[in-house]
Amino acid sequence: MARKDYYAIGVDLGGTNIAAGIVDSTGKVLLREKIPTMVALGGNTVLSRLALVITLLFKKASPSVKNKIKGIGVGIPGMVEHEKGIVHEPPNIPALNGVNVKKFIQQRFKKPAFIANDANAHALGEHTFGAGKGTRNMVCITLGTGLGGGIILNGKLFTGSFETAGELGHIVIRKEGIPCNCGNRGCVEAYVGANFIAERARKAIKAGTKSSVTKLVNGDLSLITPHLLEKAARKGDRYALQLWTEIGKEIGTAIVSIANILGPEKVVVGGGVSRAGSILFKPMIKEFKKRSYRYLRTRVKIVPAKLRDDAGILGSSSLVFKQN
Amino acid sequence: MARKDYYAIGVDLGGTNIAAGIVDSTGKVLLREKIPTMVALGGNTVLSRLALVITLLFKKASPSVKNKIKGIGVGIPGMVEHEKGIVHEPPNIPALNGVNVKKFIQQRFKKPAFIANDANAHALGEHTFGAGKGTRNMVCITLGTGLGGGIILNGKLFTGSFETAGELGHIVIRKEGIPCNCGNRGCVEAYVGANFIAERARKAIKAGTKSSVTKLVNGDLSLITPHLLEKAARKGDRYALQLWTEIGKEIGTAIVSIANILGPEKVVVGGGVSRAGSILFKPMIKEFKKRSYRYLRTRVKIVPAKLRDDAGILGSSSLVFKQN
Repeated sequence: MARKDYYAIGVDLGGTNIAAGIVDSTGKVLLREKIPTMVALGGNTVLSRLALVITLLFKKASPSVKNKIKGIGVGIPGMVEHEKGIVHEPPNIPALNGVNVKKFIQQRFKKPAFIANDANAHALGEHTFGAGKGTRNMVCITLGTGLGGGIILNGKLFTGSFETAGELGHIVIRKEGIPCNCGNRGCVEAYVGANFIAERARKAIKAGTKSSVTKLVNGDLSLITPHLLEKAARKGDRYALQLWTEIGKEIGTAIVSIANILGPEKVVVGGGVSRAGSILFKPMIKEFKKRSYRYLRTRVKIVPAKLRDDAGILGSSSLVFKQN
Repeated sequence: MARKDYYAIGVDLGGTNIAAGIVDSTGKVLLREKIPTMVALGGNTVLSRLALVITLLFKKASPSVKNKIKGIGVGIPGMVEHEKGIVHEPPNIPALNGVNVKKFIQQRFKKPAFIANDANAHALGEHTFGAGKGTRNMVCITLGTGLGGGIILNGKLFTGSFETAGELGHIVIRKEGIPCNCGNRGCVEAYVGANFIAERARKAIKAGTKSSVTKLVNGDLSLITPHLLEKAARKGDRYALQLWTEIGKEIGTAIVSIANILGPEKVVVGGGVSRAGSILFKPMIKEFKKRSYRYLRTRVKIVPAKLRDDAGILGSSSLVFKQN
């Protein structure tokens, strides 16, 4: 992409914090702000906080930058009607249900605003600035509390007929599998969401499996997290390594369905849980290759996301850059 | 679609027969031809037969129709490089592997030719003339020997980065499931392909299950087909009904993954096995609704295909109409 002579604000509106930044068209974050979301205080407070973080950025920016901010992109967990800008059932910010965030920002800041599901924004960010640069068709998986997804087709974010496309966490990998939060059974998210991973370890350890992670949490199994399981695995803990292998296989299996349906050039895998790195990616890619059509095996590349801590800000800012 | 003042030839190149017709832009088949493919005699014979069936149509057509034939569309099982027109690994016509069918037809008939996977052509046909008319995003499932698929996105056939998209038969519904012909395990096709359905019944009956289908085949279980199982079910055979319920649930589960990934307005289900009708569609739709997000449950419609015996011809002809 040729360098564009303007800037965008990207906002990552999460259940705990709102992170925002001013981004240039090469993906450089010039300024950053982060404040607590304060979900418990209700929808109006969240909107005020959202306005505050953007105002802080405008205040910090030099006049030459400020005058060249072309728009504001916001990534929000939950379903988003893009054109209208209305948010539906955001799981961690229930008070924003039905709120027109786009209109709110446009009226407040007199700038074009673009709202998207956060995993969709992440996908667009990887396509604009990260591991998916230059691809025509690409899928992005974001591993965290859940398994989020975003689909880029013919270079554009694809959201389907009802603005819901890319719900990759609810691809069924076991018809008779365990219950998922969505009401279905056997969704891949029910095996690889952060809490499910931790719960799986807890159960195994309670059932007598030995693991060094028990020591890492001083015996308080409720403190187990994917991050600690990663730590244990890196130190050679057999159970933790085996668990990450299983997690990788679950995701690899879901990627087979994705590849068979969409045939993308790349499947980009990011999000906090993906930081586990090769102990996750190796079994994931192996399982994909084992199960995939020979023809697709070498063509569809599974790669780690490139955007790390700024993924949310960059993804949201790309909503602006992709429009212009 | 406004009526267009020209015609297209649609050819359905199958492993047993080649069916072809001259079609007008409203989806009316004016003339039909059908001859054996003669696969056993090799690739050159198959190409000659393909040319023959088209020649027969040109000969039969009145001058006013003949002069207005704008192009020739061909649907072929297997992977197809659309732009180039090369066929790869067509399962029932191995002799055509690597052959440029598009070039062959264009040179022979001096008309534009369009080649596609047969299930993709069927999807485009349903979108142009059938149950998917007027949709923006639509998925078509063709139930037969295998489970074929085609995806229409933004009104166009979507074939992905490697011209393979829509391999819906190889969506994994059971990670630890039974082996599939493709080398993977637990693909939906391995549960609902015609031979798998028959085999499932054979196994159950051999294991002692009572079913009136045994009588329909005079005790020769090798003669069991989905069609006979449909007959038995219609007459109230308990086992056959239960089997169709299971088949419907398998497909309904795969549709959940499709809907979560793509969020289409419609999932059109056609092909020979779909003729079972409500004994298949009822459990399929029920399973989809049970497992789907509430938001999508009422929005994504699962409907029977409208194109019946002419689905192949109409689908292939739509490759021409969609280009112009």
